[in-house]
Amino acid sequence: MKTYLDCLPCFMQQALRAGRMATNDEKKLKEILSSVGAMIKDIPMQNTPPETGDAIYKKVREITGVNDPYKEIKKQNIAEAIALYPEMKKIIDSSDDKILTAIRFAIAGNVIDFGVNKEFDIEQEVKNNLEKDFAIFDYDKFLEELEKANTVLYIGDNAGESVFDKILIEELGKQVTFVVRDIPVINDATIDDAIASGLDSVSEIISSGCTAPGTILNLCNDDFLKRFNNADMVISKGQGNYEGLSNVSRSVFFLLKVKCPIIANDINVKENDIVLKGINIK
Amino acid sequence: MKTYLDCLPCFMQQALRAGRMATNDEKKLKEILSSVGAMIKDIPMQNTPPETGDAIYKKVREITGVNDPYKEIKKQNIAEAIALYPEMKKIIDSSDDKILTAIRFAIAGNVIDFGVNKEFDIEQEVKNNLEKDFAIFDYDKFLEELEKANTVLYIGDNAGESVFDKILIEELGKQVTFVVRDIPVINDATIDDAIASGLDSVSEIISSGCTAPGTILNLCNDDFLKRFNNADMVISKGQGNYEGLSNVSRSVFFLLKVKCPIIANDINVKENDIVLKGINIK
Repeated sequence: MKTYLDCLPCFMQQALRAGRMATNDEKKLKEILSSVGAMIKDIPMQNTPPETGDAIYKKVREITGVNDPYKEIKKQNIAEAIALYPEMKKIIDSSDDKILTAIRFAIAGNVIDFGVNKEFDIEQEVKNNLEKDFAIFDYDKFLEELEKANTVLYIGDNAGESVFDKILIEELGKQVTFVVRDIPVINDATIDDAIASGLDSVSEIISSGCTAPGTILNLCNDDFLKRFNNADMVISKGQGNYEGLSNVSRSVFFLLKVKCPIIANDINVKENDIVLKGINIK
Repeated sequence: MKTYLDCLPCFMQQALRAGRMATNDEKKLKEILSSVGAMIKDIPMQNTPPETGDAIYKKVREITGVNDPYKEIKKQNIAEAIALYPEMKKIIDSSDDKILTAIRFAIAGNVIDFGVNKEFDIEQEVKNNLEKDFAIFDYDKFLEELEKANTVLYIGDNAGESVFDKILIEELGKQVTFVVRDIPVINDATIDDAIASGLDSVSEIISSGCTAPGTILNLCNDDFLKRFNNADMVISKGQGNYEGLSNVSRSVFFLLKVKCPIIANDINVKENDIVLKGINIK
């Protein structure tokens, strides 16, 4: 997805939000906003938003000196999600379509997102998502590709959401590689968060090599790119990965809850919609 | 009111919104955002937000070449308000407290504000405001000062709202000077808008000399300053004037609907609250 004009003021809001997680120092926060403001003129509109996010969150780290301001929140979100895990497993076990129910949970987990300025109640979200209609629902194609697949590359998004991803990975019954960010950026899952979420017991965990809050192929490492190109199936979670991967040439299934009006417009759905969208499906 | 950190991303949103009123040219809109972004580092946080607004809307005019992008919308809003006028007059005539009812209408009119990103339904707002509780209600002091006053300086805000101001001015029964912006900025009322609203029949209309979307004393002309200092009573409408005048040393009554979380916090009320607040009242 390209950068839209509305993304530019939003970059400033994101920088302020991330800065405030790291410091109360008003001078440093002003400095962050001044730096990001000065960046605007050099942002290529054809770039994907997470490419700019990469530079912005780097600037926030530099100015505040804090590398992982969401560390404690990520721990809490993972713990909350783990507490919900047994109940979700029960619901899946008694459901008619286990994979679909697991997909619903995986999308519910995508509400845990501090990149957007929305409050959330994860327990309520899980309940709501069991009933909610999908705005885009490429489920038949998903099942078809899944059936033929031996290897699945599953690109994670946020910490806490990662526990919900584990639930879906367990139902996929395939050889899964779970992909995380290379370093802490917002509340996105890193290798440590993925392990704390129990993903090491159901998948191989790798870093994409990307430090942006989304997957941008030309910023990823060779190992990831090889696996991305060769995986039988790719599942991408969340907005940041959608923004980075919506124009790639291979097949990808995007699972997300839409929390931003600009992304909603890009996908042609509404804010708060849930989406299971396949691209380049044969 | 000083500039808060949250005002800085909002300046970018305001610039984009105003730019879009003037042009669809994405390059020009990007140029506006780049220019405003580059301004951020030089914004003194002790300045009031409309002082920065002044520079921003000037930049929008320069880049788009459009001096009054809200011209048609202002005409429409004035026409809509004039259409509601007879009904409002009837309600006032049959009300127990005509001045209070007129104040309620004057505040209802303050919902017509394109500086903030909210949709509004003016007819509904008029109805709601007849019942709504004030979050701050310095009405006794207002009546006391009004009774002693011969001259009232009434500082207007938006075009359309100006028709609602006329209704209140008619009930005040005093020698009123109505103050407008010096040039078109957002949808704020200018002399032409005030005349189109019928204010010339109930008051003397003057410009503050200020081109900002709010009244900033050190940007006002001498005539305004003299009248501001000498008026027996000053009534200030809306957020922009509150931002500019909240720290002045003379008595002022602020009438506004609070549409911004930062101003709400500054006044210690909630968003959407209605306020009749007096400062420096003897």
